[in-house]
Amino acid sequence: MLNNTDAIELMQALQAELKTYIAQGHGPFLAAIYDQQGTLIAKAANSVVQEQCSHCHAEMNAIRLAQQKLKTYDLSSYKLSLFVTSEPCLMCVGGIMWSGLQAVYYGVSSDMVEAITGFDEGFKPQWEQALQKRGIAVHGHLATPEGEEVLKWYVAQGHPFYGPRRKKD
Amino acid sequence: MLNNTDAIELMQALQAELKTYIAQGHGPFLAAIYDQQGTLIAKAANSVVQEQCSHCHAEMNAIRLAQQKLKTYDLSSYKLSLFVTSEPCLMCVGGIMWSGLQAVYYGVSSDMVEAITGFDEGFKPQWEQALQKRGIAVHGHLATPEGEEVLKWYVAQGHPFYGPRRKKD
Repeated sequence: MLNNTDAIELMQALQAELKTYIAQGHGPFLAAIYDQQGTLIAKAANSVVQEQCSHCHAEMNAIRLAQQKLKTYDLSSYKLSLFVTSEPCLMCVGGIMWSGLQAVYYGVSSDMVEAITGFDEGFKPQWEQALQKRGIAVHGHLATPEGEEVLKWYVAQGHPFYGPRRKKD
Repeated sequence: MLNNTDAIELMQALQAELKTYIAQGHGPFLAAIYDQQGTLIAKAANSVVQEQCSHCHAEMNAIRLAQQKLKTYDLSSYKLSLFVTSEPCLMCVGGIMWSGLQAVYYGVSSDMVEAITGFDEGFKPQWEQALQKRGIAVHGHLATPEGEEVLKWYVAQGHPFYGPRRKKD
């Protein structure tokens, strides 16, 4: 496990890198998976708009890439950690649960993601405890000022809101 | 919206068809997406083992296929319904939330899926109400005797358990 300072620095680096992905047309979320030696196994940004697929969140893309690389649907024997620039949404919490990842480090909280971007992150009470019960460590709220600044920049630049339209909309 | 008898008959047909998918190496879940005229838009079974990807649940696969076919990450304007042979897991509830689907019909409950197969469907309290609040109708417990029989047959035949290994395992 990383110490807190290293985890914050790694998250700050991802938040900075995220802007490059956004400039290339990605959604405002970036995820990276590392092994216990700190070796990068997979990195991916949100690609919902490019791939026209609502599953293509950063976490889901990074998990799929790691599983393709390691040729397994169960990453558990590799003892991998996921870093993601914002708190995982409902779908991604479930995706993490099934993946065999052993730790999650996240940046901006879902409350702030929703407040800044308007995305609906889903109803997921006690998700951290639910993952921890399953042996998955969760560390949150890393580098949040930097993360919130990137999300605000995404919105201010007029990048797309790609959530589904609701009946009430 | 379908009447109850039609929905049960449709689910019974999917449960019967699921056995063919299992015999071809699929996991024991089948999902199909229909428009309001009853036209099939996409159908897919669980393919976690074949694709070596833990995201490849039946619902996720069917949603991806529908979005590819209709060339959009937001299915909402098509007013589509998802039928799935068992209750969606945590990840798939989130996947449905983001997809733009407008209704979900499911068969066997997660409690029974867990009891029969040993899969961990995740902590998802009040998921039906959470989707309904978002304008997504949910109809459950259709054709459950047939569905439970297929799951028991999957296990009895020695087909794979593809959940992640936990630290406690």
